[in-house]
This record gives sequence, structure tokens and C-alpha cells, in this order.
Amino acid sequence: MRDKKEILAGIIIIGNEILSGRTKDTNTSCLALWLNSIGVKVKEVRVIPDDEETIVNTVNKLRKELDYIFTSGGIGPTHDDITAQSISKAFNLNYEIHPEGYKILEAYYKPGEFNEGRQKMIWMPKNAKLILNPTSGAPGFSVENVFCLPGVPSILKSMLGGLMNDIVGGEPILSKTISLKTVESEIASSLTKVQNENKDVEIGSYPFFHAGKLGVSIVLRSSKKDRIENCASKILSFVNEKKIQIVDRE
Amino acid sequence: MRDKKEILAGIIIIGNEILSGRTKDTNTSCLALWLNSIGVKVKEVRVIPDDEETIVNTVNKLRKELDYIFTSGGIGPTHDDITAQSISKAFNLNYEIHPEGYKILEAYYKPGEFNEGRQKMIWMPKNAKLILNPTSGAPGFSVENVFCLPGVPSILKSMLGGLMNDIVGGEPILSKTISLKTVESEIASSLTKVQNENKDVEIGSYPFFHAGKLGVSIVLRSSKKDRIENCASKILSFVNEKKIQIVDRE
Repeated sequence: MRDKKEILAGIIIIGNEILSGRTKDTNTSCLALWLNSIGVKVKEVRVIPDDEETIVNTVNKLRKELDYIFTSGGIGPTHDDITAQSISKAFNLNYEIHPEGYKILEAYYKPGEFNEGRQKMIWMPKNAKLILNPTSGAPGFSVENVFCLPGVPSILKSMLGGLMNDIVGGEPILSKTISLKTVESEIASSLTKVQNENKDVEIGSYPFFHAGKLGVSIVLRSSKKDRIENCASKILSFVNEKKIQIVDRE
Repeated sequence: MRDKKEILAGIIIIGNEILSGRTKDTNTSCLALWLNSIGVKVKEVRVIPDDEETIVNTVNKLRKELDYIFTSGGIGPTHDDITAQSISKAFNLNYEIHPEGYKILEAYYKPGEFNEGRQKMIWMPKNAKLILNPTSGAPGFSVENVFCLPGVPSILKSMLGGLMNDIVGGEPILSKTISLKTVESEIASSLTKVQNENKDVEIGSYPFFHAGKLGVSIVLRSSKKDRIENCASKILSFVNEKKIQIVDRE
């Protein structure tokens, strides 16, 4: 059941390179951390191929179910960049040269360099709202609640600041992590008890194995700091009782 | 349109930690590379929360559309591990102790250590087929075409070998990458021409910016080596004509 105060987002990663395994997606994490900081929770992520019908159907399904949709990928100049034409189709809008976008790129490139390939990047859905790109010129765009960003992680990240006025979030989602030198089965029943008594805090348990260390990170998430602290004290209490070593708190 | 010879898979990443941005998903890439090597193509990836209704609905939708479904995450001993009970519900099967799984974990742990938390890991859908775990004991399982694997990347990876007899793939999907010192707009129209004349090869174009280098990787994918080589030679021909430097070929 959806908490009415929650503002929910979906992320659509468009790109055969993620589905083939060649590239690991990092944009989800970047977007999710930023969205959490402004009080928006990511409800679902889909990774889909560079295929017009799939993009149209996925966008049209998710944009009606969630408050905000972010797409990543497919807005460059090559033949496999079909996000803008697909979004035009999804909203039944003309796919055409964006006059303001044209001016931006005409000024960005040296005379003679704003060639046909680059001009493809300002073909957009009619009346799309631009998302400025401080890194490499070519803007993203939004139509209603759908925000289309590039796939290159450093460029995507640099464009998020420009969205601050367009996204209305709720209370920032806070988190606290307690990392323990133990195994999950040692704490499972005590942790279940804390979760059952504190249903308004999302409690996750994640085993880790790295740098020669083995342990469990307990992650508490809520928009209410006092509710997180209350859970943390209950957890520290059973951790203390069981004489489990605390590795890290953040 | 689906190529009848293609064997298609879906990946469902179950876990709030990916949706919150805390953890970057690497299991998609690991699974996709392995699946490609045995001739299975990943058609879609969904990242969904630890929520029973969402898991049931997502699994029941995708398992009917695709040849194989792989889930990752949610099969540990804690309260947020609800994959096995959700899959039982999706298939309308009893959720119960798996006798063979019980024997495996009873032998794996020292006497007295096979506690209630650990026993939760062998509650599974009735008659599920086990997927052996050479790393940490607790097995995954499959029901029909749905294969449930753990979320910890090193453990997931170690279990793939045990699936070789259960997954019937097609011809392995081959790829070739040509990396160029150029920008996408310089090659966009020539590349479009090659793609239009070779629709049976998937051609992707990916700008890269790292380690002080800026360029474009062109990735060719097909199950036919000669079709990839044919495209590669057409691409190298225009690259040569345009006097573009080749950075790397693999």
C-alpha cells in the first residue's frame, strides 16, 4: 500500500549496452541517492533495449503510476539514440527541432561544426522543456513528469542540479548503517522483532564480504530521524547483549 | 519483433538497497555476460523492492513472456528476505522445508549451529529444484523457468556453473568493439548507413570519457562471426577515409 505522503519515482535505463552486460549501470545509484536527498523514493527501475515500441510502452505505463520518471540514455547523435523520437510518440507530440536547443548548440560549437549529426541532438518532442547540460552542451529535456537524461554518468550527474526547481519532493529520506562482525542468522530473529515493532522504518540486512572482512550491515531508512534513532538503540541493545562487535556506524 | 531463434531472459533484481542507491547492481552484468556466452539474450531487467505483491506480480508477468527468468536477492535468513515465499505464492505452491536442502545445510554447519535463522534459508516452494552453492552452503532454487539466486555478487557468480544443464541457449552472442578517437557526431551518418545495410547485426555507439581519453566505442553484436566481420570492415573503411585514429580493437 502506498503511503500518501511518499513521492515516488521510476527510472528507465535505455540501452543495449547494459542488457548485454558490457556496461554496469551506475546511473540508478546516482539518481536514487540524489532523489532520496530531496525526498523522492525510487519505486522501480527498468532496463530496456533501444527499441521504440518498448520505450513508448514502458514510459506510458510508468508515467501514469508514479510521480516522476527519469530516463537515461539514447539522446546522442547516432542511429541507436532513439529516446527523443520515442518520447514524442509516447506523448503523441511532433518530433521536431527545438528552437531554444538549436540556439544553445549553435553558440556552443565553433562556426561550421554544428553539423547534421549534432543537430539530431536538438530534435525533441514539440515544446519539451530543456534540461541544461553544463558538461557537453547538448541538453536533456522533460515532457510533463518524464525527464530525459543522457547515459554517460558524469554528464547525467552534472545535469541534476538544473532539475531542482522541477522536482517537488517530500521530506528527505534519511538512513543510518550499523555494520557488525557477525552473520545474518545470528541476528535474524532479534532484527525481525525490531522491524515488527517499528513498521515505519525500513530495515535492511546486507551481508558483506570484502577486503578480508565478513559481516552484516543493517541499514535503517525513514524520513524521521527520531524513529531511526529509536530503532538503532533497540538494535544496539541486542548487539550488546549478544557481545557482537560493531565494525562501523555511519 | 522477436527473432524466433532468440532465447530471451529477464532479470529481476530484488532489493531495496539497489533502489535506495546504497548498492550499485553488478549482478545484471555478471548474469548477462554469462547468458550471452551460452546464447541467451537479456531482454529486460527490473529492479523491484522487497515487497511480496510486487515480486509475485513481476515474476508472473515476465515468466510467461520470456524463456528464462533470473531473480537475485532476498534468499537469506533475515526478515527482508522474502523471495522464496513470494515465488511459492506466484506459483501457488506450498512454502515449506525442502528436505534435500535441509540435509545439505545440516551437513554444512557444525552440530548445534543449524539454528532457526539458518533453517529459514531452506524454506522453499514445494518440490523446487535446488541450485547448489559452492561458496556459502545455502542453495538457490528454481521453479519451472524461474531461477532464484542470492544477491551477494561473489556467491551468485559461483552458482552459475551449476545451471549449465538447466539452461538451453542458442548460438552464443559474439561481440566486437572498435574504439575510436573521435566524437559520435563525426561518424553518425556513416554508421547509420552501415546499420541500415546490416540489420542483423546490433550496432551500438558509446562515447567514453575516462583516464584523460575521449572517444567512441562501436560495439557490434551478433551470433554470426562473418556478419560482424563484414560490418567491421565497412566501419574500418569509413574510419580510414575520415583519417580517424583507432584506439583499441577487441
